[in-house]
Amino acid sequence: MKNTYVAIMAGGVGSRFWPMSREVRPKQFLDMLDNGESLLEMTFKRFAQLVPEENIYIVTNQLYAQPIAEMFPQISSDQILAEPSRRNTAPCVAYVSYKVFQKNPEANLIVAPSDHLIKDEVSFGAIMQKGVDFVSENNSLLTLGIRPEWANTGYGYINFLQEEVSPGIHKVKTFTEKPDKELAKHFLQSGDYLWNSGMFLWSVEAIVSAFRTLMPEMADLFDDRLDKFNSAEEDKAIEVIYSQCRNISIDYGIMEKAENTFVVPASFGWCDLGTWSSLWDESDKDDKSNAVLGANTSLYDAKGNMVVSSSNKLVILQGLEDYIVIDTDDVLLVCKKEEEQRIKAFNADARKDLGDKFV
Amino acid sequence: MKNTYVAIMAGGVGSRFWPMSREVRPKQFLDMLDNGESLLEMTFKRFAQLVPEENIYIVTNQLYAQPIAEMFPQISSDQILAEPSRRNTAPCVAYVSYKVFQKNPEANLIVAPSDHLIKDEVSFGAIMQKGVDFVSENNSLLTLGIRPEWANTGYGYINFLQEEVSPGIHKVKTFTEKPDKELAKHFLQSGDYLWNSGMFLWSVEAIVSAFRTLMPEMADLFDDRLDKFNSAEEDKAIEVIYSQCRNISIDYGIMEKAENTFVVPASFGWCDLGTWSSLWDESDKDDKSNAVLGANTSLYDAKGNMVVSSSNKLVILQGLEDYIVIDTDDVLLVCKKEEEQRIKAFNADARKDLGDKFV
Repeated sequence: MKNTYVAIMAGGVGSRFWPMSREVRPKQFLDMLDNGESLLEMTFKRFAQLVPEENIYIVTNQLYAQPIAEMFPQISSDQILAEPSRRNTAPCVAYVSYKVFQKNPEANLIVAPSDHLIKDEVSFGAIMQKGVDFVSENNSLLTLGIRPEWANTGYGYINFLQEEVSPGIHKVKTFTEKPDKELAKHFLQSGDYLWNSGMFLWSVEAIVSAFRTLMPEMADLFDDRLDKFNSAEEDKAIEVIYSQCRNISIDYGIMEKAENTFVVPASFGWCDLGTWSSLWDESDKDDKSNAVLGANTSLYDAKGNMVVSSSNKLVILQGLEDYIVIDTDDVLLVCKKEEEQRIKAFNADARKDLGDKFV
Repeated sequence: MKNTYVAIMAGGVGSRFWPMSREVRPKQFLDMLDNGESLLEMTFKRFAQLVPEENIYIVTNQLYAQPIAEMFPQISSDQILAEPSRRNTAPCVAYVSYKVFQKNPEANLIVAPSDHLIKDEVSFGAIMQKGVDFVSENNSLLTLGIRPEWANTGYGYINFLQEEVSPGIHKVKTFTEKPDKELAKHFLQSGDYLWNSGMFLWSVEAIVSAFRTLMPEMADLFDDRLDKFNSAEEDKAIEVIYSQCRNISIDYGIMEKAENTFVVPASFGWCDLGTWSSLWDESDKDDKSNAVLGANTSLYDAKGNMVVSSSNKLVILQGLEDYIVIDTDDVLLVCKKEEEQRIKAFNADARKDLGDKFV
């Protein structure tokens, strides 16, 4: 794709996957599907089918810049954007957008999380092509919406107009936060709602323009230092910018406020792998619906469990149904699947009681 | 106690405590009560209150002779009897009995497992004294019977005559195998039954005489080599004897057949710590009846569990009731308490599937 760049967002921890994901070993570095590749590697490879590798940027926390450089020896250090602190997605998107804008103001940019699963890569490529074609000709902020498969209450939704503005592209009516079960059912039935995937396509000109209009304070920070990008002074400029940046999401800061938001509906087998249950959904399972990652297991009277351990360990479970069993070197977690939203709180309790040892 | 020797039987593995107990780290070496002492150390100390340390013998497997020597630097290597193979309790009792008999034919001998828990050591000492007094004056095989507290189906029982032959000493009518629940209830109600503790008292003359009468083939093996005991040739003699010895228990080989069996009923807070549930019974518990050994735990909606891990590990359990959770370096076991009798089978399955790695 001509003039197209990709920004992979890889700065999070994935704390809902604690204790497998850790500050020093975040979710996107993990071989979550037990196929020998981390989610970040899978994401990089997916985009490397679509654009030249030198057009792929990885935006991450400073903590992870070095391990990422080692993971991708083929890319230059300039392609790894190290954020000095976590400031949610708006500063992160601004950083990579301004950087590409400074380099090539004609460029298009695809922004994508590093930890999503895409099953049908051919259709994914076709959708990306369609999206890039659209944004290269229209001053628009395009999101990728996933046709909902069930009334998931863990995702944000996009309400769109049925009328196509271009083949397969629709105007966004509103973005909505995570709904309750009733509302999610209504969204599913109406046919007017899509899951918000967190993947975006735009020309850098369009997104920079959106920042200038909708988040002028943040835009000023970047515009004032535009000439530092792609220079030896970039890191220093970013230090200063981040120290003054608001902590705000791109959805809240830009997408929900912009007038020129569009969506391309897709159904290429997407999963954001946001929780253990979603990983269980996507994993191979035995005839008792147990999904096992990395461990030797002997399962007796055990059904519907998600089991993760190391291949050096023998895990024997008897009489467990619909549990998450995560065994790492220093933390063992056994928790009902239906209670997995409490894992963040368990992590917080551990931090409170035991300090940073298990974070 | 004059002329009194003690034989601590410490050759087993305690496979019902797998994966915490292992071939190389058997139950009696473990700090099962989290008090800084192994069961074997506790047993040794208990008897060292009653007899001189040089009169305490530890009968064990060759595998464990070296670690036991390191555990008890105060005893001589002659006090550690290393069996070349596991042949059940009859050969083990014969070995130590003949050895003491060769050294001091007037001696009395207390035979006791290494892995039982005794809570009231004062009463224990008084009972031992009473027993030794009796056996030193009577040609008798005396067992220690525990007044049953409930209808346990995991123990053998001793049916005794209420009439005392000497204060606190009764004639044994029969030994019975582990009963079913109904029978165990009947035993409990009748008042004529005691739990078979596996602790014995006798003069070495009486037990050697019993072997000669009731197990003449085995007795011949030992009698033929009596002059080798307590000499440089003892180990070699034992190799030969064990290679020809039957695999048989002292209960089956001697106690159930002898005419001169007596029992001293006791209630000094005894537990054979035979299973995880019995350990749970004996352990300190939190206000939700969870017993935790060695681990940092965070327990949520968790009741009645037995949890064992290392102090380096954080164990988080949510929504578990009446489970055993045993986490070792290389094996994790989660099993309902009521299914704990299957642990031996889990171990056997692991051995079949994965070889000796986790034995």
